[in-house]
Amino acid sequence: MNNLSQVAEIIKGAKRPLLCGHIMPDGDSLGSVLALGLGLRRLGKEVTMVSSDPIPEVYLFLPGVEEITVGHLPERDYDLLIVLDCSVKDRPGPLVLPLLERDLPVAILDHHVNDHPFGNYNYIHTRAAATGEIVMDLLDLLQVDLVLDIAVNLYTAIVTDTGSFRYENTTPGTHQKVARLIDHGVPVSKLSNLIFGEQPLESIRLMEVALGTLELSECGQIAWMSITQEQIQRVGAEDQHVDGLINYPRKIKGVELAIVFRELGSNLVKVSFRSKYKVDVNLLAGTFGGGGHVRASGCTIEADLAKVKDEVLKEAHRLLRGC
Amino acid sequence: MNNLSQVAEIIKGAKRPLLCGHIMPDGDSLGSVLALGLGLRRLGKEVTMVSSDPIPEVYLFLPGVEEITVGHLPERDYDLLIVLDCSVKDRPGPLVLPLLERDLPVAILDHHVNDHPFGNYNYIHTRAAATGEIVMDLLDLLQVDLVLDIAVNLYTAIVTDTGSFRYENTTPGTHQKVARLIDHGVPVSKLSNLIFGEQPLESIRLMEVALGTLELSECGQIAWMSITQEQIQRVGAEDQHVDGLINYPRKIKGVELAIVFRELGSNLVKVSFRSKYKVDVNLLAGTFGGGGHVRASGCTIEADLAKVKDEVLKEAHRLLRGC
Repeated sequence: MNNLSQVAEIIKGAKRPLLCGHIMPDGDSLGSVLALGLGLRRLGKEVTMVSSDPIPEVYLFLPGVEEITVGHLPERDYDLLIVLDCSVKDRPGPLVLPLLERDLPVAILDHHVNDHPFGNYNYIHTRAAATGEIVMDLLDLLQVDLVLDIAVNLYTAIVTDTGSFRYENTTPGTHQKVARLIDHGVPVSKLSNLIFGEQPLESIRLMEVALGTLELSECGQIAWMSITQEQIQRVGAEDQHVDGLINYPRKIKGVELAIVFRELGSNLVKVSFRSKYKVDVNLLAGTFGGGGHVRASGCTIEADLAKVKDEVLKEAHRLLRGC
Repeated sequence: MNNLSQVAEIIKGAKRPLLCGHIMPDGDSLGSVLALGLGLRRLGKEVTMVSSDPIPEVYLFLPGVEEITVGHLPERDYDLLIVLDCSVKDRPGPLVLPLLERDLPVAILDHHVNDHPFGNYNYIHTRAAATGEIVMDLLDLLQVDLVLDIAVNLYTAIVTDTGSFRYENTTPGTHQKVARLIDHGVPVSKLSNLIFGEQPLESIRLMEVALGTLELSECGQIAWMSITQEQIQRVGAEDQHVDGLINYPRKIKGVELAIVFRELGSNLVKVSFRSKYKVDVNLLAGTFGGGGHVRASGCTIEADLAKVKDEVLKEAHRLLRGC
């Protein structure tokens, strides 16, 4: 493991660095790559930024995002690969994986717990709320000015990985950094609106329809909603608008297990599960051939909506004994 | 208008201060009253804290909240009334209004735009994101230690009035203050769960009902919902569950101005306004005798719901020309 000054020296010595974050890029991955990429350009380096996966629509506002090459690797004579926000070798994605087998030196900057980082130079700071915090420290060491384009990327990295400063990883240092970024002109409310604020009308209409189907078990611990294809079409919504609906039953006080049933076809239902403290929904989804995590999982069942609801709710009640 | 040191001197001189926030108390009102009340106790003062309205359930975790007297005024020989987070005389509520007619000196600490504050000593700092920020500066001047109970109240005041640091009022100073509060031991993720994490079922039911009334102007820039007393009763909700509903019209893509009409009585309607980038809703609310901030404001209008909607929407359309 290296300290940040050592990694800064290595980066300072590079002339043609290649930067990447991880697959299914999020705000921290993209914001970190862009902040460092734009910063290194200011030092006169020939910077290339790549992403194995497409940039999610919500992040297309990030300054410099159009300079990230998506899905292919430009042929260049790179002299350093800088991997951001990745704890394991396959996180950068198929675009970058072959490079890791070559002679190209690799520098890792990351905040995930990792006993065996895969770089030649590794700075792993698990108390940083976001890799963006590490990049900000690095840019300070490299004496790069935090111009607005860089500040916006750093802010986005930090605000997304801390859930708007609500998660446990948020430290005094996080807020001190963000104070500086706002001082550099970051437009807080505009960015908040871009990142968290806006939903298409169809998505709000779908929420209303879904809430109309909300039911609770007698014990109040299980809450579920169901959405039919007809409902999605009626409000003009799309599949992407269904994501996030499960937060509403989940949010209800006293609810331990939240379920959303979503009709995919006349005989096909997708079931999503969330739990708060007790129920292992990975196991629950497993009962129906699905899986995921302990607190978030899903499965797809071939049967009509009524039958799927009946079976899944029976199993859910069985799991929450006394419910 | 006074500066903060002057008001601090007045408060320092008081022995039996009475503290209050506003009716329908929110996180900033309660957190500010409690932080200052607990702080002045540490200076040996005989502090009384009152609220005209009940404490919303979500804030019952606040340290010291059980010491706020709700709904009646203890008979004591007060020597100073400290009014927090109130820009107009009726905001403290019926409990405190009679006191404003007596000889008791009044100190106002507030962050709402206000050209005619009603105290004998007035510190109005409109660039403070929350009255809690002002209280924190005041406690510093009074050399009160920010012990954990005080820090939790200040944090709650600031995090609620900035919408988790997302609103335009959030400044570098806001984040610097919060960095200090976390340094004093504020448990960020626990508080976030308490404040933002859970909603009672009634609140979700009310959301469904309110979304059923959602309308948009033809231009898509104005969105509004209305809630009648009958609807609130039907779903078993209370006044406190109405707060936050305005975020749904506000969130809609393309909406600049969000409005919630809420029937308080057969001839009384509370109107809440939020804007995103352009409309000065402090001015808009001012047209109807209310006020607040540039991006968040409200007013109460004596007329029936239909008439209030008609008048307010006419004014809103006029403001958003071409809409």
